[in-house]
Amino acid sequence: MAGAEFWYEFASTYSYPAALRVGALAEARGVSLVWRPFLLGPIFAAQGWRDSPFNIYPAKGRYMWRDLERTCEAMGVPFRRPEPFPQPSLLAARVALALKGEVRAAFSCEVYKAEFGRGLPISDRETLASLLAACGADPKATLERAESDANKAALKAECARAAEIGIVGAPSIVAGDGEVFWGNDRLEQGLDWAAGRR
Amino acid sequence: MAGAEFWYEFASTYSYPAALRVGALAEARGVSLVWRPFLLGPIFAAQGWRDSPFNIYPAKGRYMWRDLERTCEAMGVPFRRPEPFPQPSLLAARVALALKGEVRAAFSCEVYKAEFGRGLPISDRETLASLLAACGADPKATLERAESDANKAALKAECARAAEIGIVGAPSIVAGDGEVFWGNDRLEQGLDWAAGRR
Repeated sequence: MAGAEFWYEFASTYSYPAALRVGALAEARGVSLVWRPFLLGPIFAAQGWRDSPFNIYPAKGRYMWRDLERTCEAMGVPFRRPEPFPQPSLLAARVALALKGEVRAAFSCEVYKAEFGRGLPISDRETLASLLAACGADPKATLERAESDANKAALKAECARAAEIGIVGAPSIVAGDGEVFWGNDRLEQGLDWAAGRR
Repeated sequence: MAGAEFWYEFASTYSYPAALRVGALAEARGVSLVWRPFLLGPIFAAQGWRDSPFNIYPAKGRYMWRDLERTCEAMGVPFRRPEPFPQPSLLAARVALALKGEVRAAFSCEVYKAEFGRGLPISDRETLASLLAACGADPKATLERAESDANKAALKAECARAAEIGIVGAPSIVAGDGEVFWGNDRLEQGLDWAAGRR
């Protein structure tokens, strides 16, 4: 079965619609999908950015918010601009990485819906605990695993890996042969590539 | 008839496939298209950039070149990376602005094909003259008009207008109601919007 990776960052705006779309798109193409949470911070820092480029470049930020609003409207999903933006995403990323397979995917979608659909603070432990419970995971045990030294190190390694394979933003699809496709706009193209339909 | 504007910059990489696609896409939707050449320089300068962001941020540049290559391959159009990049696009933009209607559109497509398909220097007067001739325009008269004070001022005004309406990159589709859609990926969406198909 053809495989692909979905690389995402919880603070990333376009990762919200992408996370809600990618599962069905992969399934329709017979592509087995691995969800890989990571942090854009180290990648942005390597470019000299200490904040979201959407904050550093206000004109781009204005465009993006309007564009995201239109995208969500077209999909029929709710949209609320998170305050503050970007949301601190470290804990949510650690929790997602501490989960496996379908539970990781389900939890990740719940985080995005809470953050961009309901305006909830995703750095809040209780918010994450209730999302975990909603996905059938044990909140206390998962949070403990998330904050173990091994899991913290694993997330750092994921971030290093993202940079190494040429990821420059989120979301990104990485096909089995290493081709990278960046953006919510490119999910179809990346998954087509992964499925061998060039 | 519904209308839309296609804003493009000759140095812009993704404007190449977009220019070759946009005419047929607009026609298929019954959208009347106005081609508006402009320069990204002033917009980038306002963000503190004195070079293409694809040069300033090498990881993004590497991604873009590979992505553009794939895009051209999928479209079946030739691709050559211009040297140097970005190509100085001032004269070509002035010439395009000095033309009207379908001749402007045809000349603009010829410029892109010369630059990104054949690796020709688009700041070269003789190159532009031969592209003009190929479009049935008078090279000498057009170049004179292009470099008139009135046309130079008109191009400056176009750049100011681009910034004013919220354009942050090229190519962009601007629908009749002022909605801006940025990117070769967004031509269909922008033209659908312009046609009233939300």
